[in-house]
Amino acid sequence: MKEIVAGIDIGGTNTVFGLVDKEGKLLVKESIPTGHFPIPEDLAAVVSEHIKKALLPFKNEYKLSGVGIGAPNGNYFKGTIEFAPNLKWQGVVPLAQLFEERLGVRTLLTNDANAAALGEMIFGGAKGMKDFLFITLGTGLGSGIVSNGEMIYGHDSFAGEIGHVIMFPDGRPCGCGRKGCLETYCSATGIKRTYSDLLMSNHEKVDLSDKVADAKYIYDKAIAGDKSALEAFNYTGEILGLALANSVAYTSPEAIFLFGGLAQAGELIFKPTRESFERNLLNIYKNKIQILPSQLKENDAAILGAASLMWKEMNK
Amino acid sequence: MKEIVAGIDIGGTNTVFGLVDKEGKLLVKESIPTGHFPIPEDLAAVVSEHIKKALLPFKNEYKLSGVGIGAPNGNYFKGTIEFAPNLKWQGVVPLAQLFEERLGVRTLLTNDANAAALGEMIFGGAKGMKDFLFITLGTGLGSGIVSNGEMIYGHDSFAGEIGHVIMFPDGRPCGCGRKGCLETYCSATGIKRTYSDLLMSNHEKVDLSDKVADAKYIYDKAIAGDKSALEAFNYTGEILGLALANSVAYTSPEAIFLFGGLAQAGELIFKPTRESFERNLLNIYKNKIQILPSQLKENDAAILGAASLMWKEMNK
Repeated sequence: MKEIVAGIDIGGTNTVFGLVDKEGKLLVKESIPTGHFPIPEDLAAVVSEHIKKALLPFKNEYKLSGVGIGAPNGNYFKGTIEFAPNLKWQGVVPLAQLFEERLGVRTLLTNDANAAALGEMIFGGAKGMKDFLFITLGTGLGSGIVSNGEMIYGHDSFAGEIGHVIMFPDGRPCGCGRKGCLETYCSATGIKRTYSDLLMSNHEKVDLSDKVADAKYIYDKAIAGDKSALEAFNYTGEILGLALANSVAYTSPEAIFLFGGLAQAGELIFKPTRESFERNLLNIYKNKIQILPSQLKENDAAILGAASLMWKEMNK
Repeated sequence: MKEIVAGIDIGGTNTVFGLVDKEGKLLVKESIPTGHFPIPEDLAAVVSEHIKKALLPFKNEYKLSGVGIGAPNGNYFKGTIEFAPNLKWQGVVPLAQLFEERLGVRTLLTNDANAAALGEMIFGGAKGMKDFLFITLGTGLGSGIVSNGEMIYGHDSFAGEIGHVIMFPDGRPCGCGRKGCLETYCSATGIKRTYSDLLMSNHEKVDLSDKVADAKYIYDKAIAGDKSALEAFNYTGEILGLALANSVAYTSPEAIFLFGGLAQAGELIFKPTRESFERNLLNIYKNKIQILPSQLKENDAAILGAASLMWKEMNK
C-alpha cells in the first residue's frame, strides 16, 4: 500500500481539496463553497465524507496517511484558524482536530501562503533548496519564508507577513489599519490603484469601474503598449524589488519565488522587479539571488501546498 | 575533567579572547592589538600560545573542547573571514582552520553580531527562547536572528544584516554605498548625525568636533535636559521602532534584545523605541513582543558570544 495525503485549502469563497501522492500527482480534486457551512464542524464532516468516497476507488493501492490544511490566519502550532476576517467562523476554530476526529489520521494546518511555499519546496521549483522566499501576489501580498530547510513560523506561528512591512510611513492606507504596507503597492489591488493614479496624473480618460480595471485588464493594456499600464508595472516592480532586497537582509535566501495573478504577467513584472532588486541589494548579496516564477500550477497550488505540509512531515 | 571553550573576538582594533566554562564563567581574559599581525597565521599562532598558557593552571580541572570565533564578515559555513573592510588581511582568510591546526580542537566562526546573539541565548536574557532578534547599536547596527532555536545564517551565511535595510530610498548616504540604510539613523554614528542636524535646524551653536559629539556626549546632554539631545533620542527611537516592527513581520520573535553603547542610554532610547514599535506593529503582533536590554556585560559579551557558538554546538 502506498501512502497518500489529503490536501485541503480553505478559502473565503471555496474550499478545494484533493488527494496528493508522494510525487505531487493530484489524484482527485473537488471544490465546495465555504460559505455554505456556517459552522466549521459541518464543513469538516462533508469534506471528510468526500475524501473517504474519493479514496474508495484506490482502496487497494493507497492508504490515507495524513491531512494538510492551508487556511487564512492558520496557526501551525495549534492547528487552529484564528479570527479570520474573510471567513464566517468566529474566534478560534480547532480545524485540524475536527478533521483528525473524522478521518482518524494526523492533520497539520498552516496559513495559505506558508502552505504554498511548502508546495514549492516539495513539488515545485524550490526542490532541494533550504533557504528561499515565496511571495504570492494576489488580492494582497502573502509570503512564506524557508530558512535552513524549515518554514519560519516564529514564536506565535504568524511569521512571514512581508505584505505588511511598512514601505512608506505616510503611504497608502492598508486594510490592516496602518499606512504604506507593501501589499498596498505590490498586489493586484495595488497595481490597480497605481494604474488609476497614473491615469489621473497623465490626464487620461478611461473607464475605471471595478469590473474592467483588474490586474488582467492592466496587463492587456500594457501588452497593447498603453503608457500608463506599462508605467504601473514598472512602478510596482520598482517597489517590489526594493522590498525583496530589504527582505534578503533578513534571511539571505538562495532564490525568491513569485506566485499569483500578478506574477503571471511575466517579464512585465519580473524585469522591473529584478532591476530594482539588484540596484537596491547590499553588495555582498548582488548577482547571486534568483527571482523566479513559481513552478506550481496556479489551479493546483493550494491543494498541493496543503498536502506538502504533511508530506514534508512524513518525509522527515 | 570538565570541558572548557576558548572564545575569540577579532576586532578591527583589538583581538580579545578568553576561556569560558559551561555556565558562562569567564576564567581568563586577554587582549592583543589585531593590527600588530599583518598576516593571520601570526595572530593565530600567538593567540593559540596564549590560550595554551592560560590553560596550564587549570590542567587538572579543565580540558579545551573547542574554539568559537566572532569576526567581522565571518562565514559560518566555511570558517572564513571574507573581505573584511576593517581588517588588514586581504581576501578570504581560513581562520577557523588556522586555529584548529594550532590547538587541535574543533573551531567554529561566525560574524560578531551572530556570536553576540548566541551569547544572549546561551548565557544571557534569551535563555530558553527559540525566536528572538538581537540588535547591536554600535558604530553601525549589527543583528543576529534566531528562529526555531537556530541562528539564521541563510544560503551564504550572510543573513541578518538588518542595519542595511533601506528605510528611506533617498535617505542618508551609507558606508555601503547606498542610501537610507537603518544604521545611518540608528547607531552611535546615526544619532550623532541626527543631533548635529537638529542643532542646525534649532539654530544652536555647539562645538561639534568629533571628540565631543559622540553618543555618550549626547546622552549626557539629554540627561541634563538639552532639547536637541532629547529630540535626537526620540527620533532615533522612532525609526528604530518602525524598523523593528517591520522586522517582526519576517520572523515573529518572542523578544528583541538591544545591545551596545546606544542601548545603554536606557529609557532615553527604549521608551521612544517601544512606543514607535507598538504603534507600527501589525495588529496580530501587538502587546506580545518584548524589547529588552541585553543581559550580557558589555565588556565580556564578545568573548562570551564567541564561546557560545561552540557551547551551542556541544550542548546539542
